[in-house]
Amino acid sequence: MKNYIIHDEWKIIEKGFHKEENRISESLLSIGNGRCGQRANFEEKYSGDSLRGSYLAGIYYPDKTRVGWWKNGYPEYFAKILNATNWIGIDVSADGEELDLNKAEIRSFYRDLDMKSGLLTRRFVAQMASGKQLEVHARRFLSIADQEIGAISYSVKALNFSGELSFLPHIDGLVVNEDSNYDENFWIGISQKIKGSTGHVCLETKKTAFQVCTGMDFKATINGELMTTVPLPVEKEKYVGAEVKIQVKPGDEVCIEKFAALISTLYHPKNKLQEVTEKTLKRASDKGFARLFSEQEKAWNKRWETSDIRIEGDVAAQQGIRFNIFQLNQTYLGDDERLNIGPKGFTGEKYGGVTYWDTEAYCLPFTLGTAPHMVSKNLLLYRYKHLQKAIENAEKLGFTDGAALYPMVTINGEECHNEWEITFEEIHRNGAIAFAIFNYISYTGDREYLAPYGFEVLLALSRFWSQRINWSEEKKKFVMLGVTGPNEYENNVNNNFHTSFMAVWTLKYTLEAIEYLKKEHPFLYGDLVKKLKLQELKETSRWMKIIKEMYFPYDFSRKIFLQQDGFLDKELIPANLLNPKDRPINQKWSWDRILRSPYIKQADTLQSIYWFEDEFDKKSIERHFDFYEPLTVHESSLSSCVHSILAATLGRREKAYEMYLRTARLDLDDYNNDTNDGLHITSMGGTWMAFVQGFGGMRVRNGLLHFNPFIPEGWNSYSFRINFRGAHLEFKMDKSNIRVINHSKVSLELVVKGNQYTLDAKKEFTL
Amino acid sequence: MKNYIIHDEWKIIEKGFHKEENRISESLLSIGNGRCGQRANFEEKYSGDSLRGSYLAGIYYPDKTRVGWWKNGYPEYFAKILNATNWIGIDVSADGEELDLNKAEIRSFYRDLDMKSGLLTRRFVAQMASGKQLEVHARRFLSIADQEIGAISYSVKALNFSGELSFLPHIDGLVVNEDSNYDENFWIGISQKIKGSTGHVCLETKKTAFQVCTGMDFKATINGELMTTVPLPVEKEKYVGAEVKIQVKPGDEVCIEKFAALISTLYHPKNKLQEVTEKTLKRASDKGFARLFSEQEKAWNKRWETSDIRIEGDVAAQQGIRFNIFQLNQTYLGDDERLNIGPKGFTGEKYGGVTYWDTEAYCLPFTLGTAPHMVSKNLLLYRYKHLQKAIENAEKLGFTDGAALYPMVTINGEECHNEWEITFEEIHRNGAIAFAIFNYISYTGDREYLAPYGFEVLLALSRFWSQRINWSEEKKKFVMLGVTGPNEYENNVNNNFHTSFMAVWTLKYTLEAIEYLKKEHPFLYGDLVKKLKLQELKETSRWMKIIKEMYFPYDFSRKIFLQQDGFLDKELIPANLLNPKDRPINQKWSWDRILRSPYIKQADTLQSIYWFEDEFDKKSIERHFDFYEPLTVHESSLSSCVHSILAATLGRREKAYEMYLRTARLDLDDYNNDTNDGLHITSMGGTWMAFVQGFGGMRVRNGLLHFNPFIPEGWNSYSFRINFRGAHLEFKMDKSNIRVINHSKVSLELVVKGNQYTLDAKKEFTL
Repeated sequence: MKNYIIHDEWKIIEKGFHKEENRISESLLSIGNGRCGQRANFEEKYSGDSLRGSYLAGIYYPDKTRVGWWKNGYPEYFAKILNATNWIGIDVSADGEELDLNKAEIRSFYRDLDMKSGLLTRRFVAQMASGKQLEVHARRFLSIADQEIGAISYSVKALNFSGELSFLPHIDGLVVNEDSNYDENFWIGISQKIKGSTGHVCLETKKTAFQVCTGMDFKATINGELMTTVPLPVEKEKYVGAEVKIQVKPGDEVCIEKFAALISTLYHPKNKLQEVTEKTLKRASDKGFARLFSEQEKAWNKRWETSDIRIEGDVAAQQGIRFNIFQLNQTYLGDDERLNIGPKGFTGEKYGGVTYWDTEAYCLPFTLGTAPHMVSKNLLLYRYKHLQKAIENAEKLGFTDGAALYPMVTINGEECHNEWEITFEEIHRNGAIAFAIFNYISYTGDREYLAPYGFEVLLALSRFWSQRINWSEEKKKFVMLGVTGPNEYENNVNNNFHTSFMAVWTLKYTLEAIEYLKKEHPFLYGDLVKKLKLQELKETSRWMKIIKEMYFPYDFSRKIFLQQDGFLDKELIPANLLNPKDRPINQKWSWDRILRSPYIKQADTLQSIYWFEDEFDKKSIERHFDFYEPLTVHESSLSSCVHSILAATLGRREKAYEMYLRTARLDLDDYNNDTNDGLHITSMGGTWMAFVQGFGGMRVRNGLLHFNPFIPEGWNSYSFRINFRGAHLEFKMDKSNIRVINHSKVSLELVVKGNQYTLDAKKEFTL
Repeated sequence: MKNYIIHDEWKIIEKGFHKEENRISESLLSIGNGRCGQRANFEEKYSGDSLRGSYLAGIYYPDKTRVGWWKNGYPEYFAKILNATNWIGIDVSADGEELDLNKAEIRSFYRDLDMKSGLLTRRFVAQMASGKQLEVHARRFLSIADQEIGAISYSVKALNFSGELSFLPHIDGLVVNEDSNYDENFWIGISQKIKGSTGHVCLETKKTAFQVCTGMDFKATINGELMTTVPLPVEKEKYVGAEVKIQVKPGDEVCIEKFAALISTLYHPKNKLQEVTEKTLKRASDKGFARLFSEQEKAWNKRWETSDIRIEGDVAAQQGIRFNIFQLNQTYLGDDERLNIGPKGFTGEKYGGVTYWDTEAYCLPFTLGTAPHMVSKNLLLYRYKHLQKAIENAEKLGFTDGAALYPMVTINGEECHNEWEITFEEIHRNGAIAFAIFNYISYTGDREYLAPYGFEVLLALSRFWSQRINWSEEKKKFVMLGVTGPNEYENNVNNNFHTSFMAVWTLKYTLEAIEYLKKEHPFLYGDLVKKLKLQELKETSRWMKIIKEMYFPYDFSRKIFLQQDGFLDKELIPANLLNPKDRPINQKWSWDRILRSPYIKQADTLQSIYWFEDEFDKKSIERHFDFYEPLTVHESSLSSCVHSILAATLGRREKAYEMYLRTARLDLDDYNNDTNDGLHITSMGGTWMAFVQGFGGMRVRNGLLHFNPFIPEGWNSYSFRINFRGAHLEFKMDKSNIRVINHSKVSLELVVKGNQYTLDAKKEFTL
């Protein structure tokens, strides 16, 4: 756990340079705009420890690792979003002496990321070995208003010397992934050019043949006056730069405004890349840093209008929740259904930037609540478009007749993870994908999603479950063998409650969908039956048998469902009795010991109880929570949120708040000692859930919005905003009142603390 | 399955060149002498498909594969025996035209491996593109009499031309493992030299720093007369050669006798390698091919005297059993306790040439029966010397107080396998290692092995089991969670019968050992208690509790022990009802499907029943066999032997013979379609077991040798030889008689078909 980030309502602030924590700061102060992301690396050279990282959504490489134990059905590759061309570089030197904060004496240092506008600012005074002092003021952002533009304003003031300042803005494509085997370079040079201040480097990814053209242009001013000297071109392998030299005297300030265009074949045809790059650079340069930034501020302002959460009386909590919302919004804007939300977003290499079930389970509620519904729909369409690949994936494993197993990890619909116990066995992801359809329709009311998209997916998932489940002669029940639940500290177990529960629920929901389509869209349904070769009677009658006869492991004395068969054979010692030196167990214990232990990484049985709390009475929820939570070590960033919400449901406010804190400031305080790798982006959706569903007690039941809120001790008030079926609500709570404001033109029924109210357009009420 | 090897009692014969099967022939005709092995690659250049392979026992490399899913306790490396310097090469050309059987027209071709003497012979007539015809007669062997010497006699006759024949005998160290990642070369050049006909290449392995000096010398004769021309030196990277050119006319025959010295730091100090190489070469060259070969014949003859098995009336079966015995003897001579028996011996790269539990379970009975007891003792000492590493391995996994977990795969005592489901979970290997001690003492009567060596290992193993087993409050029994049995088609199961059975047996046997030591060696025992910090009462009382209260999964209706918890939840469809196109399932099915299926790769529950048949009545063995065998797909080469023996025990002779055939000619007929990778050396021990314990019904009970033999249909007679406690017996059976001949000077009690007899020294009897 770290504690060097200054608490502030809107900014993430580092005061003084924390060299040892530089990778953490680089992660925390990452900027992004949904299309690309950039860690908070320095513009000028830095020879100290740093994880250089620029990432472009959707630009990946299928990396191979030839391993001896490849088995049938294993994926052929592990996809990774590639570390891409460095567009921020501006080398600085004074009379030939290079500015490098690893070598200079740092007289003062400050940087912050302003979450209101996505602006990264850095100020410092450095004294170089020669004694020359430079004062630097650097700002940059990735525009969310014009998503292919990055802008930098980099000012250097000569404090105590006269001499020559040199600036070398450049584009450097000679980058590797830190996690690449054998330092392999995944990029092939296509073209490069430098003329005057304008240049580009165009690269192609090996194997996947994406092309990315990264262009730059810049202007230099001295004491505010535009310089006209022609810069000196510098070219190296996959590198272009243009050097500007300027005579300065003490007090003179040189400012470089550098614009970058990040243009890829994801959005433009190959033969237009250079042209688009040039046009984009011209547009940026014409507008200049200030105007680009004012567009950026406006765009971010609009985002915050619908997604901000305010807390009075707790700056750390305020900073925490905004940081979560901000980073989620930086990662995914929802305007491109080919993209998704990687566990680390664009802030690091870990997890390869690819898609997990995190999206459906932890991020969808956030987009449903805060963004236009199209954004959530795009997350669903991502899976819909991958359906054929999911069917092929199931076929590889031996399933037939249109059964689909979605990959555990993917970037293009194909499985690209290589642990069998996850790849083949963590099939509960199929349940999460079905639940996301339900969740989306429940929240938005958009049942029209079913006929063209949703039903096809549900049917393929139900077909999978129907084949994956088998009849046990011994138990005279249907069983599901050899699965891994969300608790990855168990592998290859039989009858994991969560997986079986989600399977049965999917079958039920698909039956409902059939009933609905038959009634409301009989012709469309007829078409679907033909297209999907649905043998309704035969298929659904097996589903109904499974629904009726499914086996769930149950402890009759404790009256709880068991995580899996044999769970009670373990030594059930609560996690808080473990020696603190054994925690976290995933760092301190061998895998063997973890697997045999009762310890739970993240909500497993409790995950289905969270999703379907209305199917369990409060006493039952309590029994399950009291059995499982003490065995839970919360070593997944996705664990605390679900437990926080359940604790809130049970009225255990302290526990709810404790769990909430673990997720809200996970990265800011580096709880898990791994923020250096990048941020836990998907868990940030969980933080939002914990807030709105936990503290706010928000639920949707039968199309009606419910709130059952409380305010954590020590807070004066909080508020959050919600989009719901065309309405835009602001929900405020302080120690005495609940206030709901309808900012929209739509009237809405809602239930607060069990009582139903009508809230007319543009009205508010207070309880 | 292939069928091109000619049946012969003593030889493995290929008539005509089977180019497509060349890798298979290269495996089958491999030669070795316990220290090194050489696949049947050609001496002259060959541009067709071939797996070049020379291997040196104990010379390995710790290859790394950086994988994303490394977890605590995973091994740091995967050891592999390296493909080593090629010592056989003799390039041949006529008037500059290179001899290459991939390009020449092959007029005749024959090769055989004479198992009587370990001599590989090849004869062929090739017509080159120019029309020139060469007749070649090549012979080679690796001496088991002088284990650092390889010898080649390579004659070429010019059939139809006059011109210049050129020979380039060479040593080539520029070799890679075919399975190396990224074609990495694991050898560093140290020195090389060529002078006259004598040369060497000295290399060092990366990381492990073994040095290997490979030397050559040769003589050339024409029509039997020694040539005196000075050869031309040729040097390249890690390569030395010496070229001889000779004018020939039709009918002239040139013969190259090439001698190789294979000298490593395993047996000599680094600074003496070259000196030893030179001395060895001189010794070989002085003796010449003929004398070296007569020593070789003598040494092999001695081996065969104690290990031959004869079958009359079935040449294929005769060839099969001799091939198994021959290859085992080529692989391991038992004179160096640092060495062991890799699953592929020195015949290929697969499995890295390292040690598995195969040795204890399948090879030890062979060495016990056929070799001096010191050989078997050396196999045990191999593990004894690795005990400290096994304790460290257990510590890595969280065990304490001297508990040992032997590695599943090792070359130096450290675990070097990287599938957690095998590395951590296939802990039944600990049982096999304990059983080997029991088996050795039971066979040899050498209880004196316990005090200095055996007990220390047994105690560490018992300490492991004691910690690995836990109390289940639910079952009110001790359980063993998260293991993988010998049936690797299941992973991470609870309460695998075989593992639990072996654990309990180990505890019992260790208690017996304590009783024995206390009684017979009280002082030594006292020393051991101190040295091993044995808290006798505390430790043994827990063992006794476990012995009493261990849980074994049991089916009360079928009256059988279950392979593991939940086994009956599977769909128990017999393997013979599977669609033949689905076999072998390990090639046709996904890992997911295999894991959920009931199919068994090799004996699991039946393995303990085989080892402890006297603890089960015949009806019970029958019930278990009839339940498990039909579910067994025998996709491990180690499966058939155990089933063959059990079938024999149950009097099911046809089944016993069917299972025997699968193991006996596994490689010769390429049953599993993988002989191209190398031979299944350890399963050859199983073949021997199936013969002697199955057909011969040989057992040792309370120090007494038992036979309960039968003769398979279609055989006229068979015989095998056995060492037992100083006696040397020949056991013969034909359709009417059983004859036992005592070739030794020791009198022996033995039991045949239930009746006890005394067989005096140098006597025989017939029943």
